[in-house]
Amino acid sequence: MKITIINGPNLNLLGTRETDIYGDESFDSYLDTIRSYYPNAEIDYLQSNVEGEIINYIQESGKSDGIILNAAAYTHTSVGIADAVKSVECNVIEVHISNTFSREEFRHKSYLSPVVNGIIIGFGLNSYKLALESLIKGE
Amino acid sequence: MKITIINGPNLNLLGTRETDIYGDESFDSYLDTIRSYYPNAEIDYLQSNVEGEIINYIQESGKSDGIILNAAAYTHTSVGIADAVKSVECNVIEVHISNTFSREEFRHKSYLSPVVNGIIIGFGLNSYKLALESLIKGE
Amino acid sequence: MKITIINGPNLNLLGTRETDIYGDESFDSYLDTIRSYYPNAEIDYLQSNVEGEIINYIQESGKSDGIILNAAAYTHTSVGIADAVKSVECNVIEVHISNTFSREEFRHKSYLSPVVNGIIIGFGLNSYKLALESLIKGE
Amino acid sequence: MKITIINGPNLNLLGTRETDIYGDESFDSYLDTIRSYYPNAEIDYLQSNVEGEIINYIQESGKSDGIILNAAAYTHTSVGIADAVKSVECNVIEVHISNTFSREEFRHKSYLSPVVNGIIIGFGLNSYKLALESLIKGE
Amino acid sequence: MKITIINGPNLNLLGTRETDIYGDESFDSYLDTIRSYYPNAEIDYLQSNVEGEIINYIQESGKSDGIILNAAAYTHTSVGIADAVKSVECNVIEVHISNTFSREEFRHKSYLSPVVNGIIIGFGLNSYKLALESLIKGE
Amino acid sequence: MKITIINGPNLNLLGTRETDIYGDESFDSYLDTIRSYYPNAEIDYLQSNVEGEIINYIQESGKSDGIILNAAAYTHTSVGIADAVKSVECNVIEVHISNTFSREEFRHKSYLSPVVNGIIIGFGLNSYKLALESLIKGE
Amino acid sequence: MKITIINGPNLNLLGTRETDIYGDESFDSYLDTIRSYYPNAEIDYLQSNVEGEIINYIQESGKSDGIILNAAAYTHTSVGIADAVKSVECNVIEVHISNTFSREEFRHKSYLSPVVNGIIIGFGLNSYKLALESLIKGE
Amino acid sequence: MKITIINGPNLNLLGTRETDIYGDESFDSYLDTIRSYYPNAEIDYLQSNVEGEIINYIQESGKSDGIILNAAAYTHTSVGIADAVKSVECNVIEVHISNTFSREEFRHKSYLSPVVNGIIIGFGLNSYKLALESLIKGE
Amino acid sequence: MKITIINGPNLNLLGTRETDIYGDESFDSYLDTIRSYYPNAEIDYLQSNVEGEIINYIQESGKSDGIILNAAAYTHTSVGIADAVKSVECNVIEVHISNTFSREEFRHKSYLSPVVNGIIIGFGLNSYKLALESLIKGE
Amino acid sequence: MKITIINGPNLNLLGTRETDIYGDESFDSYLDTIRSYYPNAEIDYLQSNVEGEIINYIQESGKSDGIILNAAAYTHTSVGIADAVKSVECNVIEVHISNTFSREEFRHKSYLSPVVNGIIIGFGLNSYKLALESLIKGE
Amino acid sequence: MKITIINGPNLNLLGTRETDIYGDESFDSYLDTIRSYYPNAEIDYLQSNVEGEIINYIQESGKSDGIILNAAAYTHTSVGIADAVKSVECNVIEVHISNTFSREEFRHKSYLSPVVNGIIIGFGLNSYKLALESLIKGE
Amino acid sequence: MKITIINGPNLNLLGTRETDIYGDESFDSYLDTIRSYYPNAEIDYLQSNVEGEIINYIQESGKSDGIILNAAAYTHTSVGIADAVKSVECNVIEVHISNTFSREEFRHKSYLSPVVNGIIIGFGLNSYKLALESLIKGE
Repeated sequence: MKITIINGPNLNLLGTRETDIYGDESFDSYLDTIRSYYPNAEIDYLQSNVEGEIINYIQESGKSDGIILNAAAYTHTSVGIADAVKSVECNVIEVHISNTFSREEFRHKSYLSPVVNGIIIGFGLNSYKLALESLIKGE
Repeated sequence: MKITIINGPNLNLLGTRETDIYGDESFDSYLDTIRSYYPNAEIDYLQSNVEGEIINYIQESGKSDGIILNAAAYTHTSVGIADAVKSVECNVIEVHISNTFSREEFRHKSYLSPVVNGIIIGFGLNSYKLALESLIKGE
Repeated sequence: MKITIINGPNLNLLGTRETDIYGDESFDSYLDTIRSYYPNAEIDYLQSNVEGEIINYIQESGKSDGIILNAAAYTHTSVGIADAVKSVECNVIEVHISNTFSREEFRHKSYLSPVVNGIIIGFGLNSYKLALESLIKGE
Repeated sequence: MKITIINGPNLNLLGTRETDIYGDESFDSYLDTIRSYYPNAEIDYLQSNVEGEIINYIQESGKSDGIILNAAAYTHTSVGIADAVKSVECNVIEVHISNTFSREEFRHKSYLSPVVNGIIIGFGLNSYKLALESLIKGE
Repeated sequence: MKITIINGPNLNLLGTRETDIYGDESFDSYLDTIRSYYPNAEIDYLQSNVEGEIINYIQESGKSDGIILNAAAYTHTSVGIADAVKSVECNVIEVHISNTFSREEFRHKSYLSPVVNGIIIGFGLNSYKLALESLIKGE
Repeated sequence: MKITIINGPNLNLLGTRETDIYGDESFDSYLDTIRSYYPNAEIDYLQSNVEGEIINYIQESGKSDGIILNAAAYTHTSVGIADAVKSVECNVIEVHISNTFSREEFRHKSYLSPVVNGIIIGFGLNSYKLALESLIKGE
Repeated sequence: MKITIINGPNLNLLGTRETDIYGDESFDSYLDTIRSYYPNAEIDYLQSNVEGEIINYIQESGKSDGIILNAAAYTHTSVGIADAVKSVECNVIEVHISNTFSREEFRHKSYLSPVVNGIIIGFGLNSYKLALESLIKGE
Repeated sequence: MKITIINGPNLNLLGTRETDIYGDESFDSYLDTIRSYYPNAEIDYLQSNVEGEIINYIQESGKSDGIILNAAAYTHTSVGIADAVKSVECNVIEVHISNTFSREEFRHKSYLSPVVNGIIIGFGLNSYKLALESLIKGE
Repeated sequence: MKITIINGPNLNLLGTRETDIYGDESFDSYLDTIRSYYPNAEIDYLQSNVEGEIINYIQESGKSDGIILNAAAYTHTSVGIADAVKSVECNVIEVHISNTFSREEFRHKSYLSPVVNGIIIGFGLNSYKLALESLIKGE
Repeated sequence: MKITIINGPNLNLLGTRETDIYGDESFDSYLDTIRSYYPNAEIDYLQSNVEGEIINYIQESGKSDGIILNAAAYTHTSVGIADAVKSVECNVIEVHISNTFSREEFRHKSYLSPVVNGIIIGFGLNSYKLALESLIKGE
Repeated sequence: MKITIINGPNLNLLGTRETDIYGDESFDSYLDTIRSYYPNAEIDYLQSNVEGEIINYIQESGKSDGIILNAAAYTHTSVGIADAVKSVECNVIEVHISNTFSREEFRHKSYLSPVVNGIIIGFGLNSYKLALESLIKGE
Repeated sequence: MKITIINGPNLNLLGTRETDIYGDESFDSYLDTIRSYYPNAEIDYLQSNVEGEIINYIQESGKSDGIILNAAAYTHTSVGIADAVKSVECNVIEVHISNTFSREEFRHKSYLSPVVNGIIIGFGLNSYKLALESLIKGE
């Protein structure tokens, strides 16, 4: 089974930036942990600060068994990423580390939510694990 | 460990109403399944069509180890349930069976989202299992 | 033939409250009159000030040949009653005694209108009789 | 007793246009039917695609015992027709064949509703008959 | 000197309709009075309930020395009349009998105001005389 | 003299919930204090989390000499309670413990304010005593 | 007969400021002209840049036979001046030199228009003369 | 092959009105030119300033092989013309001479765009030729 | 104990202006009455029609034991008065004589409410006495 | 003559993605066809999923004889592409394959429309050919 | 060279009010410092809490070489001050001590910004020095 | 001391594009000038048309002594750049060459303003020099 995790802008700083909101664990460290939980799954990881590259990654991952997508800031502004999600056949799960609905008004709007298969918000890094769980154990 | 699942209006009809959206499994049947997954957890279940009774249930469940709340239609209109969520100390997870963001505009607004600990949307009945997972295995 | 009339909050005061808007006939008295017009129809009557009880009444009346629903104030705020209307298979007719469109702005919005089979507004108590007419004589 | 039915734009195509929404009976055929139901009533019928002609018709019918008005598209944009309705002394009933509230957003707004005596929506052609009923049997 | 007065929908009923708002003098009677005040001016008068005819009248009156335009209900909805006003070279004065700003919200918006040469509102029928004054005695 | 105090949802938790906003005195304890201030007044107290029960309480208290109403969360969403307030003849005073205008945007809107006789906001539990003062000593 | 003209902020600069919009005649010069037209009328003139002083002027002029008010910028922002207009018994005419509706959006809103007796806009300084005409020759 | 061109209000003035926006060629002259380009096509031409007549023209042209519709001002206000477009079976192409999106805000909204087969905006009179091209050479 | 009452624009006319809304007692007369109720309190009184002077008064009264502020029309438009309220350390109580929420829409918005210590609305002149009560007897 | 066609995000998937909306022809195949129609024109083709690269392409193509731009999703969100269009001197034609106005609300807004020379929407791939036609045969 | 600094309401309290936002230096003390930096410039200083006096100051300073304007609260509500800025010929620089965009929503709107020559926000008292720099060293 | 200037999309065309708004000096030429003013400062310069690269540049420049950021078009649409600004510890100054508030409505909104340390708008290229001044001489 093959799953792709795609992270959007500024998530490369995870563990160092705004640690009161996002926690102080780096994503690489977290990735090691969840890979160890699911040894039979191939978990790819892609990150970019560029909206168009995230579109590329989604198009390229369309043949995997599932995409876990945290588009970060682009969640709230990108029609292009939403269109890319619609163009792939595999399941796409939208995740957010923090509770976007208890933050600024502009983070309450997601262009992705209407087109994804499931949404998981506010469980810290554990949001990714729950998404993996949903993809691996079936919906 | 004690978890309370609270369901809101019309969810007593699950499995018979609008089965294209909500599926054809009754909640009681589903409850048996998930209870069998977590034999060590005490999983209480409450349902009401009355907004104020859901407030009562939340207040009364505040000493449990977690509440899984699908307030259904009241999600979008009830300040009172949101206030009740704020009044309890245990974790509260908001769940929805269908993807509320791909339905009517008025279902995109949730009074609960800003005050809950986590949000899980669109995984069918599996949304409850993911919520349980998050409460039992830690966040 | 079996028809259920369901009245919402404050309509128990009909005939005594704001008589300039609603007239001074009580609903019980009016009910006698219309029952005499349609001796072969079984006309049930339910009233509640509680939103959730109205949801219960609709669910329970779903097997009748038609529901005449004046949800009064809940017309303008209740997603839950609208969801209940969608969950039943019989025809549901929305009625209002006064012309809601010539009153306060917030009474112009109805969550029920998009999901009912027909709407009758502003004919005084006669609105109920016209609704009965539409159900009994076919659409 | 004299009643005038006034139909607005595109209703001359009734029975041929968008039959999934409006049905396949022409208005002339329907008119014969309802005239036969009320042999003692004189039922006039006027139709125009021109907003100003509908204003003329309303002014000219002001002496009849009632007007049944389906202004169709002009319902949602015409202040002038609403002003004409206010200028006549007889009762005016607004009718719609389809449920305007389950169609496009712009069809939810009616300039006529606040100034008419009653509103009947969504009963197919039967909406006209219910309106006649309300005018002939008194309100 | 040649001036054209153009009146919009329902103003043919002036003096008989809603006399608490518009007074009880007919426009013909008033016209006699103001013609007597300005014996040297040729004052034409046109009225229509049809938006497109008002457009025709404006186009045809473009060679006169001034147009006094009370478009009534069309004031608030007609882009076409505003375009016609822009297409003529003579001065156009917008007048209203009643104070449109102390009536319904939808009467506060005028498509004509931004494109006319002057606006006179709320002086009863005297609004026309002030407009004439402004055209005849120069601005 | 007979006064009824009616409290809305979650106010049964007063003194234990969100004590930084609402203080740590229970309402029962406070009630003893104010009853001792006004020994000649009969001060009834009702509380419910159910919107419809609050409507019932208002209808039933309509014969008292005044109602002090803190509808809490329902203040911002209930047309039904506002309709109930309009249906009673005695004075109704709206009170709030905290300053609702310095909290979330949705707490700035009150359906009750336009229909009550007076409004007292932000004096802590003292808001009730000021309301009593206004009812007992006359307006 | 006694008329008071009250001018608001920046109108003391008339004839020197933004002459493309307001023309190059000073108000004092214009005042001489219109006084000469109406030798039997006593025409007072007051100007202030201070909102509260304009309120004072209106209160003090309430016993005159009419007020001509160009509140300039305060037209669009002052509830207090509108309240002052409502407090006086004489007629108040709102005038504007330029066509406020063909300028910035925020100049389209007037707090004064709903409470004045008449409105004259866009005739240059001639707006004042038309207002005088309406007050002196009757409405 | 038979194509109908329908022009809306004020387009009869083309070539003389606002020539900086619309150019100085009359539509008749332009019509000769495009007829010469497509000698095998029968190109009918209809123009009216009356909204209802445009509805009539569309209904009557529904059997042609295509309609090219420039509804001008009615584009932005007419639900009735949009309904007429929906009622015909042939292709309807919406054209505009000027770029409506670089003009006033109210010209950005088109009731027709959602229901036509194609939209061509801003090419001057050439917009009609491109529309013809699309109809004649297939889409 | 020293309390300052500050009244805003047009309140100098109390007792003579719009007596149906504000009553017919002058503020000076009322002031005598409430001073007699609280002989030990020093009650200063300031009134101005000028927004900036009210700001001055608030700044100068900051050392008193409390300010009772009825900013009248400026309540709805003045950020400056709200900033002044924030700049003083003593308690500030916002009062209104009439129920501002049952009047025009623009009177529902208060810039002061979010920054004052308490709000009392709609008790007639008695609003001031309740405010005094709250300041003198403690909150 | 040199024309550049620039396609935005996800259009690299044309012919495979959402074929019910966009058809099943790939853009490369279509490009061959239109190049064969215009053998004397040099038709360049650029596609990117990256907003900034599209800005680069527009800047670099500014010396060509025309740009045909389908910015896809960026149409609705990119101020930067609109600024790039304004920075080049050649004609820019905005095209869309599907009718954007009959799809989601957010696709009705185009940042590009106000700054392009012409707009062609809804003709399928034929939209590009019509754009070419307009550039090659003159506007 | 002559520069005028004009400060708006409540800025006379600088150094004592809300020192966490505005710092604890008085403006007089700061003025000494910046005057010492620019010994060759004549730096006038005016402050008022009255909107109209600030209009007066701007009119009177129009002959200086530049105005530095911190209109404080009036920034967000005063059309009159914006009109005054437009009436003077010298450069006007808008300054704010705090970052108005990270404070309340109503402070994000400035009537002055569209009409000033430059805007400097959020540098504490240093905002004034940067404005001086821009005026003295040329733009 | 090390400062990084980051310019956004289309600013590479400075001096050639829309010279009436932005002037005709290239940024490289201007950079030479300001480097000569501050010989002791190391002034880096980065420009990109790609939103994500600007995010990269900000992350990489986070260790410098200050960033001067003109995000151009992305100012109004990019949540991602705002998040990057929040992630760095050094001061970030937002600058704009033209007065964005006197241009299109969509340029009035900045996602960056609430999160930067200071804002300088409308001084032409001099905006950068003032920003440098603020960073080098301290705030």
